Amino acid sequence: MVKYQTVRGMRDFLPKEMRKREYVFEVIKEVFERYGFQPMETPAVEYFELLARKGGAGEEIKKEIYYFKDQGGRELGLRFDLTVPTSRVVASNPDLPKPYKRMMIGRVWRYDRPGAGRYREFWQADVDVFGSESPLADAECIAVVCEVMDKLGFKDFKIKVNNRKLLEGLAILCGVRKDQVEEVFRSLDKLDKVGREGVEKELSEKGFDEELIKKLLDVTEVSGDLKDVLEKTRSLGGNKLVDEGAKELEELFNFLMVLGLEKKVIVDLSLARGLDYYTGNVFEGVVEGGKWSVAGGGRYDTLVEKYGGRPTPATGISIGVERVIQLMDERKLFPELTRNLVYVAPANDEVRAKTLEVTQKIREAGIPAETDLMNRKLGKQFSYADSIGASKVVVVGPKDLEEGKLTIRDMKSGEEVKVDVKKVVDALKTMLEK
Amino acid sequence: MVKYQTVRGMRDFLPKEMRKREYVFEVIKEVFERYGFQPMETPAVEYFELLARKGGAGEEIKKEIYYFKDQGGRELGLRFDLTVPTSRVVASNPDLPKPYKRMMIGRVWRYDRPGAGRYREFWQADVDVFGSESPLADAECIAVVCEVMDKLGFKDFKIKVNNRKLLEGLAILCGVRKDQVEEVFRSLDKLDKVGREGVEKELSEKGFDEELIKKLLDVTEVSGDLKDVLEKTRSLGGNKLVDEGAKELEELFNFLMVLGLEKKVIVDLSLARGLDYYTGNVFEGVVEGGKWSVAGGGRYDTLVEKYGGRPTPATGISIGVERVIQLMDERKLFPELTRNLVYVAPANDEVRAKTLEVTQKIREAGIPAETDLMNRKLGKQFSYADSIGASKVVVVGPKDLEEGKLTIRDMKSGEEVKVDVKKVVDALKTMLEK
Repeated sequence: MVKYQTVRGMRDFLPKEMRKREYVFEVIKEVFERYGFQPMETPAVEYFELLARKGGAGEEIKKEIYYFKDQGGRELGLRFDLTVPTSRVVASNPDLPKPYKRMMIGRVWRYDRPGAGRYREFWQADVDVFGSESPLADAECIAVVCEVMDKLGFKDFKIKVNNRKLLEGLAILCGVRKDQVEEVFRSLDKLDKVGREGVEKELSEKGFDEELIKKLLDVTEVSGDLKDVLEKTRSLGGNKLVDEGAKELEELFNFLMVLGLEKKVIVDLSLARGLDYYTGNVFEGVVEGGKWSVAGGGRYDTLVEKYGGRPTPATGISIGVERVIQLMDERKLFPELTRNLVYVAPANDEVRAKTLEVTQKIREAGIPAETDLMNRKLGKQFSYADSIGASKVVVVGPKDLEEGKLTIRDMKSGEEVKVDVKKVVDALKTMLEK
Repeated sequence: MVKYQTVRGMRDFLPKEMRKREYVFEVIKEVFERYGFQPMETPAVEYFELLARKGGAGEEIKKEIYYFKDQGGRELGLRFDLTVPTSRVVASNPDLPKPYKRMMIGRVWRYDRPGAGRYREFWQADVDVFGSESPLADAECIAVVCEVMDKLGFKDFKIKVNNRKLLEGLAILCGVRKDQVEEVFRSLDKLDKVGREGVEKELSEKGFDEELIKKLLDVTEVSGDLKDVLEKTRSLGGNKLVDEGAKELEELFNFLMVLGLEKKVIVDLSLARGLDYYTGNVFEGVVEGGKWSVAGGGRYDTLVEKYGGRPTPATGISIGVERVIQLMDERKLFPELTRNLVYVAPANDEVRAKTLEVTQKIREAGIPAETDLMNRKLGKQFSYADSIGASKVVVVGPKDLEEGKLTIRDMKSGEEVKVDVKKVVDALKTMLEK
C-alpha cells in the first residue's frame, strides 16, 4: 500500500496543534477588531500578471511562487502575501469608504527552501489602512501588533522602525547615485545575516569605493532613540529626502508617545524591508533583542495606483503566525488549553438509547458532548474520554437509572458525584463554570 | 492603467459580505463543536497522485481540478474536497484516538464551469467520523447538519437518505450485471436534471432493454417512509446486498428516531451520490422540497485503506457554504448584523491628542473603537462613521472638555447624552449592552 505524504514544505495540523493555533488566531482577531479593522477575503489564486507586478518583480518571481496555467491557458499563481490581493481589491473598488481598515488572516504560499520555521504554505495575519496618509495610521498598525504580542505573552517584543525616504536621502549623502539606491539596499538588507564585513565585501565587489561604504555603514549602524539617531546623522549634512523622512518618523513618534508605546520602539537605520514598494515609514517586529523577526510592514503609498486604482496612501503590518507559534512553544507561553467536553458513557448495551437522550440534552444546553460510537466497555470508554481531553464523564448505569440517577466523574480530580437524571445539565453547568 | 481582476470563477468578499459569512461560520462551528468534533487543517496543495486516487478517477480528474507541476517537477493539485486530504491524514496517523471526530471548514477548488452558485473556489464545512462502523455515527452527522440548518433559519430542511448496498442489490434484481452497476448509477444520478424520460433514453442508448429500465426506474422512483419503501421493493425479491443495505438503513432510522429526527428524513431510492467511493448509507440535505441540495455525504469505509492506512470505517457530511448563504440571502434569513463599533470624533485639531487617549481607553475596555485618520471636519466624520456601521459616536469637543465632558450619540436613534470624560467607558458599556 502506498502511503501518501503531505506536499514538501507544507503541514497538516492535528487537533492538539489546532487548539494552539485557534487560541493565537482568536487573540489576533480580537485585537484587530478592537482597533476597528474589518475582515475581508480574497481568493488563493490570482492572475500571475498581478503577482508579477509588485515592485516590478516580473518574470523572476516565478521562481519564488507557485505559478501555473489553468486549462483555459490562464497564467495564475498562488498568492504570496495578503497585501497585493488587497491592493487589487482596493484599486477596483474605489467606493469603499476611506479609511478602509481591513484585517485578513489567511494562507499564503511561497516556493521557498523549506527549513526551520520556513514553510511553503504559511499563515499571515495582517492589518492595513487604505486612504490615510496620517502617520497615526502607521502608529495604529504598530499599536495593534504590540497589543497582540503582549496578549500572547511576549514581554520583550519591540518594533524597529525606519523610513524609506530618510534612508534613501542618507545613502545619497554618502555618495550613492539615485539609480544605485535599490542595489545598495539589497546589500544592506543582509546585515543581519552576513554582518558588517560581509556587506562591505559585497558593496566593494559591486564597485562602490571604500570611503562611501564606510560612511554608509557607519550611519546605518546607528540605532536607538529617535532624537539621538537624527542628531548623529546631522554630520552628513541634509537634503529634501532626509528632511521628509525625518519628519515622518517624528510624527509617527509623537503618536506612539500618546499611545504609550515609545518604549516599545527602536529606530534602526539599517532596516531596509522590501524597499521596492515601501515609500515611507517601515517597521519590523522582533523579540529577543532583534534576533527573531515576527512581524513586518510599512507604508506603500503607490501600490494601489500601480494596480489601476486612484492614488491611495496605504500602510500596514503583517504578523508571521508560524514563527509566533513556534516561539510561544519554545517559551511555553501557551495557557492550558482544555476542552469543555463532556463524554457520556453507557455502562452496558441496555442503556444506550437513554445515553443518547442524555447526550442530546447536554448538547441542547450548549455544552459540547460526545458519546460511545464503538460499542466499547466502560473501561475503554474512560481511556478514550481521557485521550480526547474530556473534562467530565457522565456514566449512565442501569442501577443508577433505577434510582433516577447518573454519575458524573471529574477527569482531573477523579471525584464522582451522583445527580438526578433531570438535573444533569444544571450540575454540569455548575461544575464547568468553576 | 491596467485594472486587475479576480481570477474567473473566484470571488473577493468585502466587509459587508464577510459579516454574513462569519455569522454562518460561527453557527456551523458552534454546532460542530457541541457534537464533539475537533478542528483540523490540511494544506491547500496535495500531490496529484492522492487527488487522482479517489475512486480511481485517475488522469481524468485533471480536467476537473487545478493541476500543476512545481519547479521541482512534482505533480500537484489544489484540493477539491476535504474528505480526501483528511483520509490521507487518518491513514498516515494510525495512532489518532478512534473514533476520530473531525470538523473542517475550508476552501476547495474545482475547475468547473462558473455559473449561478457555482464557483471555482468555494468553502465546505465538513464533519466526519473515522473508526466507527455504527450507524449512530451516520446519525450524528445527519443530526449536526439538521441543527446547523435549523439554527440558520431553514425550517423546510430535509435529509434524503439511501444505501449504496441496497441500491446495488436492487439494480441486480432488476437484471443489471455487477460490472454495469456504476454505469447505471451514473445515468440514474441525472434523474433530477433530465427527468425519467431522459434517463430512459440514456440507458436505452447504453443497450439496456426496456423491461430492465422500466423495473429499475419504477423501483428507484420510490421515496418516503422507510417501512413503505422497503415494502414496495419486496416485489422484486431479495438478495444479500438488499438485506444488508436495508438493515443499515433500519439501524440508522432507529438512531434518528431517538434523536427526534425521523420527520426530517426521507428515503429516496434514486439518490446515487458519488457512488464510486460510498459504501453504505448516503445522505443529501435539501430545501424547498428537494430542489436545492445544500449538503451531502455518506459512509466510505474503504477510503482510508486505499490511502495506505489500516482498514478504518468512515462516514461524514459536507455543507456547501456558498449555496447556504445564497439561499439565506434569497429568503432574508440573516439577522441584522450590526457592528459593536464606537467612532471617536475630534471636533477640531486641538483635541486630537485627547481624542486618541479616549479611543485607547475605550479599546482597553474591550470595546472596538476607531478614530479619525483623515483630519476630517466633524460632519464628514459622522458620514464616515455611518458608512462603516458604527453604532455610537463619541464627540470630543473643546467646550465639553472644559467641563470634563464628552458627548455620545446613538447613531440609530440620533439621541445624544453628555457624560463625564472619566465615565465614558462605563456609559458606553451600559449603552452597548442594551
